[in-house]
Amino acid sequence: MTAHIIDGKAFAAGLGDRIAEGAAAFADRTGRAPGLAVVLVGSDPASEIYVRSKGLMARKLGMESFEHTLPAETTQDTLMALIAELNANEAVDGILVQLPLPDHLDSLQVIEAIDPAKDVDGLHPLSAGYLASGLPGLVSCTPLGCLMLLKDQLGSLSGLDAIVVGRSILVGKPMAQLLLAENCTVTMAHSRTADLAEKVGKADIVVAAVGRAEMIKGDWIKDGATVIDVGTSRVIRDGQKYLVGDVDFAAASEKARAITPVPGGVGPMTIMTLMHNTLIAAYRRKNYPVPELGA
Amino acid sequence: MTAHIIDGKAFAAGLGDRIAEGAAAFADRTGRAPGLAVVLVGSDPASEIYVRSKGLMARKLGMESFEHTLPAETTQDTLMALIAELNANEAVDGILVQLPLPDHLDSLQVIEAIDPAKDVDGLHPLSAGYLASGLPGLVSCTPLGCLMLLKDQLGSLSGLDAIVVGRSILVGKPMAQLLLAENCTVTMAHSRTADLAEKVGKADIVVAAVGRAEMIKGDWIKDGATVIDVGTSRVIRDGQKYLVGDVDFAAASEKARAITPVPGGVGPMTIMTLMHNTLIAAYRRKNYPVPELGA
Repeated sequence: MTAHIIDGKAFAAGLGDRIAEGAAAFADRTGRAPGLAVVLVGSDPASEIYVRSKGLMARKLGMESFEHTLPAETTQDTLMALIAELNANEAVDGILVQLPLPDHLDSLQVIEAIDPAKDVDGLHPLSAGYLASGLPGLVSCTPLGCLMLLKDQLGSLSGLDAIVVGRSILVGKPMAQLLLAENCTVTMAHSRTADLAEKVGKADIVVAAVGRAEMIKGDWIKDGATVIDVGTSRVIRDGQKYLVGDVDFAAASEKARAITPVPGGVGPMTIMTLMHNTLIAAYRRKNYPVPELGA
Repeated sequence: MTAHIIDGKAFAAGLGDRIAEGAAAFADRTGRAPGLAVVLVGSDPASEIYVRSKGLMARKLGMESFEHTLPAETTQDTLMALIAELNANEAVDGILVQLPLPDHLDSLQVIEAIDPAKDVDGLHPLSAGYLASGLPGLVSCTPLGCLMLLKDQLGSLSGLDAIVVGRSILVGKPMAQLLLAENCTVTMAHSRTADLAEKVGKADIVVAAVGRAEMIKGDWIKDGATVIDVGTSRVIRDGQKYLVGDVDFAAASEKARAITPVPGGVGPMTIMTLMHNTLIAAYRRKNYPVPELGA
């Protein structure tokens, strides 16, 4: 079997069209576009790129973008005051604080200060609790994007065996909750897991979110499995730089039914699910029925 | 192999002694005993028994017990006002609302109104989120009791394969999070799980929390596994009434290394972990270091 290569870029583009429609309908109804506020502290170059691309995408989809760039020496009090202001601002539906923050700042206090109704990154412990309790809330962007790709590939996930490798708060843990809510039998594996190859080999769905280049070998994959690779590692081979995932893509493609490439798989989904969350937050805050986004 | 029968009653008694010491030390330091408020709405006979036994146990361990019994026709507003009063009452460290509430009341709104620092039942979505995020919080009593028994039996759980059968918000889901935090590889199984027997047969730790009499067969259990049975079902056999668990105890005892009986296993732990949570809440609310309770 040669796997179908899941085109995350194309899926994200289609989702973007639906979000843009939803944003336009929201603006027609309320007289204002859904608004996303992004807060950056300091001048980390990678963070600056992320923040800029989020603002660009929001505007492209017909949303308002509020960008707040604060100097690296910003105090906790100043940042907390900004969060309070964004919480109170009716035009702001989503608040994202770009992580990591400089070391002298208390990230958890900042995240817990965000109004959970505006927590479009799904990072607030209350958002995690809503997810764990099966209550409506905002879900961390990357796992939400993975779930969308899986449902697009497989339709119903009910009764399938899924393994999530990696247990980060941002990806692995919410991913497991999402798969459980879809009635998968979910195994949460990690660095202490015994016989990982055997466990991966039993799974109909493999989500790899470890961040170790090609640590999941192709011959571990069950015939016909669907593989979602969240990892991205930079490697140098024969003097060339490559971006590779957690899964040995070439070998796994011989076994899987469908697989995400790195890059071009999960990556393009993450920014789009952020837009998705912002739109949903806007609708929910108005108590409007959330439009069908096909996800 | 004939399994060691885990004596939950004896473990709970030992834990109770340590809690009583902690409560006495707290009273010495603050001039007041740790306080547990239990709220009962209506007159369900089973709920009345639970509430009474919680109050008795609290007093037995040297805590203050505040019992609030409201008529079945209590309005949401009245109940919410009582919660607000208990939140504000400095002498109250823990608040437990006995569930289920009468149908006309909104349980979630009530639970979300409880100060998370006093949520000794671990039911607030923020408590679930703290658990999912690896942050300190209060953990649902029954899974906490199961974890204590497992650690008492096995010491370190790191690297062991665990299966949790049942995915309730009260037991299965927090149990999985607790085992993951102990570095188990955790599989969450449920009614849609395929090949449950095979999956149970791979597990070093089986936690059964389904509520279906003896649905887990003895010959499914891996040799030397540790089995925690949360289920209790009433059955009638040969005209006699019995209480049985989710696991076929007699047959499983031939395979397991250790197993909880029903009754006398997990059951006695639940009320004691409630006392444990009340004591912890009292210490944390004062910013005192939490005493070592051996759990």
